[in-house]
Amino acid sequence: MHAYRSHTCAGLNKDQVGQTVRLAGWVHRIRDHGGVLFIDLRDHYGITQLICDPDSPAFADVEKVRSEWCIRIDGDVKARDESLINPKLPTGEIEVFVREIEVLGAAEELPLIVFGDQEYPEETRLRYRYLDLRREVMQRNMALRSDVVRSLRQKMWDRDFREYQTPIITASSPEGARDFLVPSRLHPGKFYALPQAPQQFKQLIMVSGFDKYFQIAPCFRDEDPRADRSPTDFYQLDMEMSFVSQQDVFDTISPVIAGVFEEFGGGRTVDAPSEWPQISYRDAALWYGSDKPDLRNPIKMQVVSEHFAGSGFAIFAKLLEQDGTQIRAIPAPTGGSRKFCDRMNAFAQKEGLPGMGYIFWREKTADAVAQELGITVKEAQAKLKSGEIEGGMEAAGPLAKNIGPERTEAIRQQLGLGIGDAAFFLGGKPKAFESVAGRARNVIGEELGLTDKNRFAFAWIVDFPIYEKDEESGKIDFEHNPFSMPQGGMSALEGDPLDVLGYQYDLACNGYELVSGAIRNHRPEIMFKAFEIAGYGKDEVEKRFGGMVNAFRFGAPPHGGCAAGIDRIVMLLADEANIREVIMFPMNQRAEDLMMGAPSEPTSDQLMELSLRVIPQEK
Amino acid sequence: MHAYRSHTCAGLNKDQVGQTVRLAGWVHRIRDHGGVLFIDLRDHYGITQLICDPDSPAFADVEKVRSEWCIRIDGDVKARDESLINPKLPTGEIEVFVREIEVLGAAEELPLIVFGDQEYPEETRLRYRYLDLRREVMQRNMALRSDVVRSLRQKMWDRDFREYQTPIITASSPEGARDFLVPSRLHPGKFYALPQAPQQFKQLIMVSGFDKYFQIAPCFRDEDPRADRSPTDFYQLDMEMSFVSQQDVFDTISPVIAGVFEEFGGGRTVDAPSEWPQISYRDAALWYGSDKPDLRNPIKMQVVSEHFAGSGFAIFAKLLEQDGTQIRAIPAPTGGSRKFCDRMNAFAQKEGLPGMGYIFWREKTADAVAQELGITVKEAQAKLKSGEIEGGMEAAGPLAKNIGPERTEAIRQQLGLGIGDAAFFLGGKPKAFESVAGRARNVIGEELGLTDKNRFAFAWIVDFPIYEKDEESGKIDFEHNPFSMPQGGMSALEGDPLDVLGYQYDLACNGYELVSGAIRNHRPEIMFKAFEIAGYGKDEVEKRFGGMVNAFRFGAPPHGGCAAGIDRIVMLLADEANIREVIMFPMNQRAEDLMMGAPSEPTSDQLMELSLRVIPQEK
Repeated sequence: MHAYRSHTCAGLNKDQVGQTVRLAGWVHRIRDHGGVLFIDLRDHYGITQLICDPDSPAFADVEKVRSEWCIRIDGDVKARDESLINPKLPTGEIEVFVREIEVLGAAEELPLIVFGDQEYPEETRLRYRYLDLRREVMQRNMALRSDVVRSLRQKMWDRDFREYQTPIITASSPEGARDFLVPSRLHPGKFYALPQAPQQFKQLIMVSGFDKYFQIAPCFRDEDPRADRSPTDFYQLDMEMSFVSQQDVFDTISPVIAGVFEEFGGGRTVDAPSEWPQISYRDAALWYGSDKPDLRNPIKMQVVSEHFAGSGFAIFAKLLEQDGTQIRAIPAPTGGSRKFCDRMNAFAQKEGLPGMGYIFWREKTADAVAQELGITVKEAQAKLKSGEIEGGMEAAGPLAKNIGPERTEAIRQQLGLGIGDAAFFLGGKPKAFESVAGRARNVIGEELGLTDKNRFAFAWIVDFPIYEKDEESGKIDFEHNPFSMPQGGMSALEGDPLDVLGYQYDLACNGYELVSGAIRNHRPEIMFKAFEIAGYGKDEVEKRFGGMVNAFRFGAPPHGGCAAGIDRIVMLLADEANIREVIMFPMNQRAEDLMMGAPSEPTSDQLMELSLRVIPQEK
Repeated sequence: MHAYRSHTCAGLNKDQVGQTVRLAGWVHRIRDHGGVLFIDLRDHYGITQLICDPDSPAFADVEKVRSEWCIRIDGDVKARDESLINPKLPTGEIEVFVREIEVLGAAEELPLIVFGDQEYPEETRLRYRYLDLRREVMQRNMALRSDVVRSLRQKMWDRDFREYQTPIITASSPEGARDFLVPSRLHPGKFYALPQAPQQFKQLIMVSGFDKYFQIAPCFRDEDPRADRSPTDFYQLDMEMSFVSQQDVFDTISPVIAGVFEEFGGGRTVDAPSEWPQISYRDAALWYGSDKPDLRNPIKMQVVSEHFAGSGFAIFAKLLEQDGTQIRAIPAPTGGSRKFCDRMNAFAQKEGLPGMGYIFWREKTADAVAQELGITVKEAQAKLKSGEIEGGMEAAGPLAKNIGPERTEAIRQQLGLGIGDAAFFLGGKPKAFESVAGRARNVIGEELGLTDKNRFAFAWIVDFPIYEKDEESGKIDFEHNPFSMPQGGMSALEGDPLDVLGYQYDLACNGYELVSGAIRNHRPEIMFKAFEIAGYGKDEVEKRFGGMVNAFRFGAPPHGGCAAGIDRIVMLLADEANIREVIMFPMNQRAEDLMMGAPSEPTSDQLMELSLRVIPQEK
């Protein structure tokens, strides 16, 4: 018999009754039922119930084991009594009577209980990650991650892509974030960098003639931690293709992404790629207040400036006299109660706005009818009750009073709202309030139950502007990635830079940016011009991106691609809110590995070899 | 029609004759046959012949293109004349008459010609890697590497392993080599390290209950470069299993490795895993002078001390009077000529030995016969020629004379040699000459054509000693990896440390170490004892390997695994002698990336953020 096991802890059922078997695993739970010991023995695959009583020669040793000891047992498979069968467990029809036991690894007192759902501080979980990872949800999350990555790979191979590995110790890849540096021992005073992404390398692979590249690529950014971002390294499905347009990239990657959501989404609805809208960056900002809108939420904002221009609501009317201002409405179907509207107003104040004006529509009240018809409220109530008169609709809220019934009605009609609905209004320069509007839209969708939690909703966000103007300095700089091809090529760069759109795109899903990419600028002359507009001279470009720009001088093909965030995809699929739940050994929020003790102080020999000295910190 | 291509450059054949097509690719070769231009257009998939003459509206533009320009053409598919069909080319039956051309990327004068087999200095190849990679052999090598990695993954999944990613920015993993350090910005004066291998993490994954792990894992060692080693990062197929013995690991990984050699070995013979010998470390040293023997070479060394002890060959006889010395023979079938023996003797001298004694066996010469029978040489020649007497065998070489015919014959019989064969002899303390003997064995096998170039020959090298003794200091230290389980467990550690063997193993193939692994020491008490013998106190162990040792206190399962070197596997399969031929963007021998300009000087802002100062170098 094998030294450790004849079956896994998920491998036994009625068929083995009567056999002598060997199992190995961890003591999940122990119960003592009047001198009869029941142990749930757990391994990666499942759980088997062990039983032992004083008739067994192993009883004295079995009595000593504790939770999370790793043991090996020999025993006889027995059928459980009909009444004790556990249909939820694959091994629920049997139990194993223990005749021999070997302790493979004892355990000290546990800082974290594996069995059950007890919550622990993150610090405990990360310091004892090897115990935390034994818990069922973590085993499931890690297996899910592994399966998702495998499926992504398979789907790329199915589309004739090959995976090529790019260097990890290399030169800085200017993606805009901070590099991790690696001092060189052989070249004192010089440093390598870890790649923020394989951006330049994948473009060089295209220049090298490989046509279709992908990689499950580790990426490194020295960034401050966030719930949906690892503070050190993270993984992308990185891909690039030659001789393609933007639509070719969409047609290639969309079914790959949709595929894993269908495969691992646990039955949640996945929008079909053919129906994923392509929304311009400007429309996304207007409609959703975000370039990664959550389209499970049906709310679409609208411009309603005309209804407020010259109206009795002086704040908005005055605002609209300034250049570049707008009033936008967030329609809130089913949000038509003063209580809800006040709560949203409070939300806006918490976000730093003076407040959020609103109108809501309700059945006309008896008060209003009484006033309108010049009768008493009681009479009005009776007439409304008997149906002698119809109540009709009434717009409520301070804004409605200020702008009067005609404008209020025009707004209602534009937004397509009715009794029981509400609308919120924000005004000013769009850039100043768009993101708050977007967050308000999210909260409204959530609170009113409009956001379909059972769905993955995708949209391509396209037509990103290449440049933006710094409001204060008036300086033009790249809005996003400087390597994208401007729509219209060289001639587009001869007009107003702020009008230039790029072949640059993101895929949004449920409020997250899952994919980001571009058709690249592969023509050196257009690239130099594009950089010149942002104030970078030829020398600067050659110095910073020389590897790639030089390559473009030797027959570069048109090419483009994208990168999809693996950690985020798995986070969405696992329905987790924190990226650390889907990473095996994550850093904590201060970019420390508490289990391994990283970072740590180097030895003076190490520093000497690297020709480095640490500058003492001021206390 | 698609913006760039309707077909790839391998996609057209007779079926498309008459169609108008669009192709994109690189100008591989241009020929001008009396005003008619022939262009081989190349992409990743193949080559298509384009033709253009003054009848085409595109002629003037086609005339301008040069090698390695990236172009798009529209044209008509025409059948080639019967006599011009190229059966070696999938597109050899057709050519495309160009009607329109667009230059997608022009090329400056080329520092490296893609077409043909011209050799270039490594510096040129790496600086213009994107041109070097366009060459057919490099396209093939990179595709091979990608396919091999894919196949390894598939084979691991088929064996129920899951791939889990381990951290790349982490704490030092004490594999014995030098770490690359990464300064922490958030923790001034502290450093992360890049993992030399995911050794501790994969063991932690086992302690976390995952049972079967693998990863195509990047590994980082700050080592001086070698032909078969990258100076910075390299890739391993890393795997680990719980509840296994050494044989279980062999049974799992052997068919995986054999599988890729069969799949991608181009028809070379692959020894069946069931026939891979398991050779102890000590036998490998004796028989092959190496712990990674090339078993394509049938030569097996033997101890022949007894034949030299007290013999007339004073050097060896005296040597054997010292403790711990041996004489070993390298049999060299078919090496029986003075010329060959002298050449091998010269090889040994080049390797720093005083020389290598030899004996070779030949047909008895007329001289010898004449002397033996007391007749003239002429008479002897005649008798030999007529067959009146048989010449028989004669041992030649100075050694044979010194030790006399009986001992010489005994050696011949022990080694199983005959006429036309030779044997070489080395003596001393085995450690001092084993590796030279091993190299001599290789050269002899190569020169005599004994080494079967058309075969992949594998052997597991097992029973590595855990400890070695430093000859000078007499200090006991780990021979290899300190994490292996000693054979015999705790009780083995109570005897002579130099007798302790580990459950530790390598897989050798054709003279390379392809795989290395061990059953791990998962019991804290045995681990502390093992370290104590090598002079490491408990504190030191906890400090250096705390992450893992702490985990072993909480129910560690027995586990083991191995890691296979991807770069070397691909190098063997591609039949390349230098690892840089199978890496997309390798560093040069000085650990520099000439194309990207790494390493480079950091900005003072970067150093400031990391609280570092570079110590000025003395000139």
